[in-house]
Amino acid sequence: MDAINTTLTDAQRMDWLRLIRSDNVGPRGVCAIIPGPRTFRSLVNHFGSARTALERLPDLVRRGGASRPQRICSEEDARAELEKSERLGVRLIAPGEDGYPPRLATLDDAPPLLAVRGIRDVLMRPMIAIVGSRNASGAGLKFAGVLARDLSEAGFVIASGLARGIDQAAHRASIDGGTVAMLAGGHDKIYPPEHEDLLAAILASGAAISEMQLGHAPRARDFPRRNRLISGASLGVIVVEAALRSGSLITARLAAEQGREVFAVPGSPLDPRAAGTNDLIKQGATLITEASDVVQAVEPIMGRPMTLREEDDEPLVGEPAASDRERIIGLLGPTPILLDDLIRMADASPAVVRTVLLELELAGRLERHGGGLVSLP
Amino acid sequence: MDAINTTLTDAQRMDWLRLIRSDNVGPRGVCAIIPGPRTFRSLVNHFGSARTALERLPDLVRRGGASRPQRICSEEDARAELEKSERLGVRLIAPGEDGYPPRLATLDDAPPLLAVRGIRDVLMRPMIAIVGSRNASGAGLKFAGVLARDLSEAGFVIASGLARGIDQAAHRASIDGGTVAMLAGGHDKIYPPEHEDLLAAILASGAAISEMQLGHAPRARDFPRRNRLISGASLGVIVVEAALRSGSLITARLAAEQGREVFAVPGSPLDPRAAGTNDLIKQGATLITEASDVVQAVEPIMGRPMTLREEDDEPLVGEPAASDRERIIGLLGPTPILLDDLIRMADASPAVVRTVLLELELAGRLERHGGGLVSLP
Repeated sequence: MDAINTTLTDAQRMDWLRLIRSDNVGPRGVCAIIPGPRTFRSLVNHFGSARTALERLPDLVRRGGASRPQRICSEEDARAELEKSERLGVRLIAPGEDGYPPRLATLDDAPPLLAVRGIRDVLMRPMIAIVGSRNASGAGLKFAGVLARDLSEAGFVIASGLARGIDQAAHRASIDGGTVAMLAGGHDKIYPPEHEDLLAAILASGAAISEMQLGHAPRARDFPRRNRLISGASLGVIVVEAALRSGSLITARLAAEQGREVFAVPGSPLDPRAAGTNDLIKQGATLITEASDVVQAVEPIMGRPMTLREEDDEPLVGEPAASDRERIIGLLGPTPILLDDLIRMADASPAVVRTVLLELELAGRLERHGGGLVSLP
Repeated sequence: MDAINTTLTDAQRMDWLRLIRSDNVGPRGVCAIIPGPRTFRSLVNHFGSARTALERLPDLVRRGGASRPQRICSEEDARAELEKSERLGVRLIAPGEDGYPPRLATLDDAPPLLAVRGIRDVLMRPMIAIVGSRNASGAGLKFAGVLARDLSEAGFVIASGLARGIDQAAHRASIDGGTVAMLAGGHDKIYPPEHEDLLAAILASGAAISEMQLGHAPRARDFPRRNRLISGASLGVIVVEAALRSGSLITARLAAEQGREVFAVPGSPLDPRAAGTNDLIKQGATLITEASDVVQAVEPIMGRPMTLREEDDEPLVGEPAASDRERIIGLLGPTPILLDDLIRMADASPAVVRTVLLELELAGRLERHGGGLVSLP
């Protein structure tokens, strides 16, 4: 990747933006797969820069057999987005740059560019996420506020999703110390709309981040995707109240997958709003009843050095032979198959298989499922 | 010990009763030390039978240097207790006999004779203890009832302490399936007195047990002592609601020390009646929200064979030399000392040291503390 721990030039930032805003590279798709950032990374690794990747993109898409032309973001469109962002006070920031949450940058699927608004310093401080039901009880709201205030006073930045209920209570109680709203849509499409005022208060001493472009109104599937940012940027996630099968439990699962701490506030078995948190504790989450429980658990982690994700992809080959491409596509079908099995069956090098899959992905034909499974619908 | 897995003769039962009702052999003292049953066991192991121990008791007491004559229970007193017990429907039962809870018999400090009233078969079935605050919330009482009923229907006998609050709710909900009240006083000194009716209902299809003699009104220190029976007889202990520093937490600690499962029902951090149970979960107790959580945890244990406690005491020597006795007593003082250290410093065999300590104990001079510590106040 062009730059880690350095600063992008204006031209590089423009190229990066164009590449992630092109079809089948940028944000799209389903929770837990999130191919956009990974595809971006494969392309930049392979071609050495976003600029070269953009130049070669039409070729790759054609070889992947796109059914219709795939849009490549024009320089004009990218410039327009950058200018519009600037007017809103939003800056597009790459991993390693000032204002990109350091822990978020360590994820495999870290957004290549994060749209950041507010005080950037706040995003560099240790964060704790507090999430929970939109439909919270009075006790739950109160306790979210107590936790947020105490953790804020202990020096942590509180991350949450600007939703009604627990999110709102956590943001409100930690505004003075700095809190971060992580958005599922673009910075100009705040959800829920009645939280515009809350956001304005947050931005005075905190920040808001999004990986979506301006004008993007959040859809249902964008929330789980956004939730990986909440957990990924944080040392740990506290779930205050959650019914079974609620969105907060997705955040908790993502946190566990990302190696983040999962904390849950217990409740009476007779209270359905505690069913999700009690269940998390049964599954191994840490029961907490006060901020000090959280501080105690994360203090040892804060001392540990963080590593940015490794550039461990094998280099892609120049261009697979037509016979290789045909054989690999022949092995794919609507039934998902493990990438490892595909490589074994394809009688081709892993690099060749990966290149063909990248072509198919850019052509919008490949479907990636969780756990290294791919299919061709 | 005379009999394990057999039946005592009437004469043996009389001798056992006389021995445990003699000064410094039977129940007395402080929680977690409970020298009575251990002293009884040392004596019977050494002399081969309670009868011989009774005959030799005055000698031992004299050698221990009792400041005043120690009472030995007369045959008349023991016979009177047996007759009075019979009239109340109370039977005195030894470990290994029918009606002695099998898990209780595996404890180091299992009562040599247990006073049992009610349906003896119930005491032989797998038990789960349910305990908690006397001053419980409506939700806590309801949930204790739900758990007790469900576990009862799953085939478990519910053990508890006949107290107000959680105990009462647990007993009431499991009366049909059989429930066991474990008493801190004698069978004729029910506490609290208003639970006489509850006890009568329990006895119709369940049982009550006590290690105290008839006429013994329970004092504060008898409750922790009784709590070890609740946990010891059970596969596991469920704490439903408990404030910090409450009696139920003592039962939980004893359960953990006895290798029994500890289950706790979670509650809101804003509810002080859940502070104790939440704390137990932080310390490693299993969070439960329904009976099936308990069943799942104890099922593997139920299959495991139980072993009655090993007769692992070294035999006592006939009579230590006067010089040994003097040297050992010289090493003892008001500051508690570890038995192991005493043996090392005494320049005498462990058997000699143990015999001298037994003499001192029978003379009412030795104080045993937790963790193998002894002192001579």
